[in-house]
Amino acid sequence: MASPDTAPLIELERFLPYRLNALAARVSNALAEIYQDRFGLSIPGWRVIATLGQYGVRTGRDIAAHGVMHKSTVSRAVTSLEERGLVARKANPDDMREELLTLTDAGRAIYEALAPEALAFEMRFVSALSPAERKTFFAILERLDRHARSLHEEPRAEVAE
Amino acid sequence: MASPDTAPLIELERFLPYRLNALAARVSNALAEIYQDRFGLSIPGWRVIATLGQYGVRTGRDIAAHGVMHKSTVSRAVTSLEERGLVARKANPDDMREELLTLTDAGRAIYEALAPEALAFEMRFVSALSPAERKTFFAILERLDRHARSLHEEPRAEVAE
Repeated sequence: MASPDTAPLIELERFLPYRLNALAARVSNALAEIYQDRFGLSIPGWRVIATLGQYGVRTGRDIAAHGVMHKSTVSRAVTSLEERGLVARKANPDDMREELLTLTDAGRAIYEALAPEALAFEMRFVSALSPAERKTFFAILERLDRHARSLHEEPRAEVAE
Repeated sequence: MASPDTAPLIELERFLPYRLNALAARVSNALAEIYQDRFGLSIPGWRVIATLGQYGVRTGRDIAAHGVMHKSTVSRAVTSLEERGLVARKANPDDMREELLTLTDAGRAIYEALAPEALAFEMRFVSALSPAERKTFFAILERLDRHARSLHEEPRAEVAE
């Protein structure tokens, strides 16, 4: 076994899971500046709004799986958004244990105010890359994502509670 | 303004901040299988051990900034690791408000047991890419990371408490 004086066993700056997480967190934090101060939304709260804005109606479980978040994280965000009148719940005729979520008119208005700013943020972020590099980067992300799913079929975020 | 019946304003599957976060979370969850069941470590707990394994001595603030985590997340992880005898605190002669953290012998033993498995996991994960693609991907991550820092000089994780 190596002693504490030897070279580090993992150089985190070159360890892909760590690098990916640090970049993803940095980007999320920078994006959050757009909605936290103006609308008091948390990062999971924004993701709930963005998912319902895109899909109209979803369960909390769908939103958690789609964004690879803990169900409990999504559940807390939904409770807070519901208290603020931004998200509404209704019974799910297909599964009585799981409610369907939608944006209220007020929630939709926030989505429509935020979406163009979020897209403008993304444009500023990817402006560091040429169009060809963006395409390459997206293709690699896609491939790694499929590969990560195959390494771990059932996302831990779904089973960790 | 668009009505709820129009096309979604943001397609999350093509929105880079969302894609990056989903991939990063999926990879973290898959990696976590290695250390959660065997050593009962949380994701932040593993990151604290990996950072101290690499750097020897660090403050909680350093670890949070390095991994772009909330200080409170790191603080909770450190408390749990200390209770388990894996991390030790000592006074910081340069700043009495901030303690220095190190791995205990037991913490170091866990790091040395986990590091080769974490590296083997990374190898399996990046095996989806050719060596040239890995190089391209790392170079793009590096560039985006620098760019994200310039978009948001002070990481929100450091100021959000």
